[in-house]
Amino acid sequence: MPSGDKDVYDKYLGKLLTDISAHTEDGSACCEYIGPGGSGQYVKMVHNGIEYGDIQIIDEAYFMMKRLLHMSNAEMADVFSNWNEGRLSSFLIEITANILREKDPDTSDDLIDHILDEAAQKGTGMWTAIEGLEMHMPIPTMAEAVFARNLSSIKAERVAASKVFNEVPSVTVDKQRFVADLEQAVYASKIISYAQGFALLTAASVQHGWNLDLGDIALLWREGCIIRARFLDRIKQAYEENSDVVNLILTDEFKDEIRVALPGWRRIVVKGIEGGLYIPTLANSLMYFDGYTSEKLPANMCQAQRDWFGAHTFHRDDRPYVNSFHHQWEEF
Amino acid sequence: MPSGDKDVYDKYLGKLLTDISAHTEDGSACCEYIGPGGSGQYVKMVHNGIEYGDIQIIDEAYFMMKRLLHMSNAEMADVFSNWNEGRLSSFLIEITANILREKDPDTSDDLIDHILDEAAQKGTGMWTAIEGLEMHMPIPTMAEAVFARNLSSIKAERVAASKVFNEVPSVTVDKQRFVADLEQAVYASKIISYAQGFALLTAASVQHGWNLDLGDIALLWREGCIIRARFLDRIKQAYEENSDVVNLILTDEFKDEIRVALPGWRRIVVKGIEGGLYIPTLANSLMYFDGYTSEKLPANMCQAQRDWFGAHTFHRDDRPYVNSFHHQWEEF
Repeated sequence: MPSGDKDVYDKYLGKLLTDISAHTEDGSACCEYIGPGGSGQYVKMVHNGIEYGDIQIIDEAYFMMKRLLHMSNAEMADVFSNWNEGRLSSFLIEITANILREKDPDTSDDLIDHILDEAAQKGTGMWTAIEGLEMHMPIPTMAEAVFARNLSSIKAERVAASKVFNEVPSVTVDKQRFVADLEQAVYASKIISYAQGFALLTAASVQHGWNLDLGDIALLWREGCIIRARFLDRIKQAYEENSDVVNLILTDEFKDEIRVALPGWRRIVVKGIEGGLYIPTLANSLMYFDGYTSEKLPANMCQAQRDWFGAHTFHRDDRPYVNSFHHQWEEF
Repeated sequence: MPSGDKDVYDKYLGKLLTDISAHTEDGSACCEYIGPGGSGQYVKMVHNGIEYGDIQIIDEAYFMMKRLLHMSNAEMADVFSNWNEGRLSSFLIEITANILREKDPDTSDDLIDHILDEAAQKGTGMWTAIEGLEMHMPIPTMAEAVFARNLSSIKAERVAASKVFNEVPSVTVDKQRFVADLEQAVYASKIISYAQGFALLTAASVQHGWNLDLGDIALLWREGCIIRARFLDRIKQAYEENSDVVNLILTDEFKDEIRVALPGWRRIVVKGIEGGLYIPTLANSLMYFDGYTSEKLPANMCQAQRDWFGAHTFHRDDRPYVNSFHHQWEEF
């Protein structure tokens, strides 16, 4: 079957799609024709990149509760179950709670405590990160989720390094506030991660002329896939209100929630850094937010340096953008 | 000339190398035969990735002094000149000081204030970041330096976003301590960035059988290139003491300096996050350090999740690594 041919899809998959839709909770399809020329595979790849982000965000929340609050697996399971009743309701949060309650049939210990902390990968998150770099599209949350798996997988090096640097900074934490802040941090980081993923899809759709329906794609992921979540309705809604979304964080659907989340999210990232914890996706989601919403960045210095050593030229803030300038830098 | 052929290099470049060496400060060569099969190009690529990191680290230091301390360009120039007298002495620090003193011939203003904060790139930093991902080698400092350029280049989006989210958190800072801490943060982040770059070179050398002399490569970069710096002697020294360096941060040459830098470095990153500043390389260098030196990471949860939804299996901490396990997860 030729990839991306809508007529063929309709002919062979039309009835199948109808059958599947009949079995989803609200009758919406969980598979659909995406677009021409490899766009379906591309969307599935970005889905997986987002999945890497979701997983790592959750795992960092688990890590922080365990390391800073010294919570038991049962207590953490209750936190995730509680989150699963609210706006974070999703397959991944649900199984995280269940994993924390699972017993090891051999030892009767909690199984999670016997699983080795070395993450493997099949490569789709890596492809997404590479695609972000090649498209010049910043997707740090997903890229750092990939690097987090890489870093976890060199356990022997980490064990050796932990003996060279064995002073773990201690921090004091108010448990109840921390858990509430953490929910804000997880939710806001999730918004940011999806904002990056959908910005990448938007750029790819424009570049390849795919004309992707991003609201439909969000809806498509609501059922049957690993990132399925109530949250995806919100993204669908954002695209219904405005199909030309530049970045999801700017939409009416999300901007107020981000504003509310910010103080707690910042406190969480600060506590993680003060406590010496590796929390790359919680931190880089916030970092992306701070960069994306910053009118000024220090890239003027970068351009000055590049012009100094390589005559790469720069634009000026007081001249039309069409003009590039090279300065005859003085040798001091 | 066939790429990577040592005899040919010696025949054609031998005298040239001798001539060039005669013109460097200490008689050491600034170009040399690297190894077979594209290894020379590879080393140059990683050099450029490191250059992206160095530049972004410096630019974030400028950004923090400007935004949190409200220092004038002249004051910041003096800080960089001062740093250039010490262990940070390097071409890039030197030109940064000079750039801050440069006047715009047209307006007589400081030129830096008229340069647009949109960074361009030629792609070599991006290639390095992609190579890190493909080699499964975490190099977040360099990758985030690339994303920082991408994020800077969408200035119109940033300006629009800054109007939607216009509350900048305020922080109080003790200027003298901050500048001292910042020097620690810049220096430690630089060590981390080079540690990532040299770890990538080590992995590539093993994978391709290049047998790279990494100490010699450090020495080679001491002169004539953009990252030339006194600091590179230290890396050469680390490889002299032990040619099988696993990670530069563990070497006698650097570990004590990192230990000393840590408290100030942490304070800087915390202040940046509290102040809403985008400082991805200072923060991700610290994040890498905290991850690399962490005996335990939450990747056990990642492996449990992957086994739940995809039967991807996991290793156990109480069984030989050669065995993989799949658990029959209970459906709750």
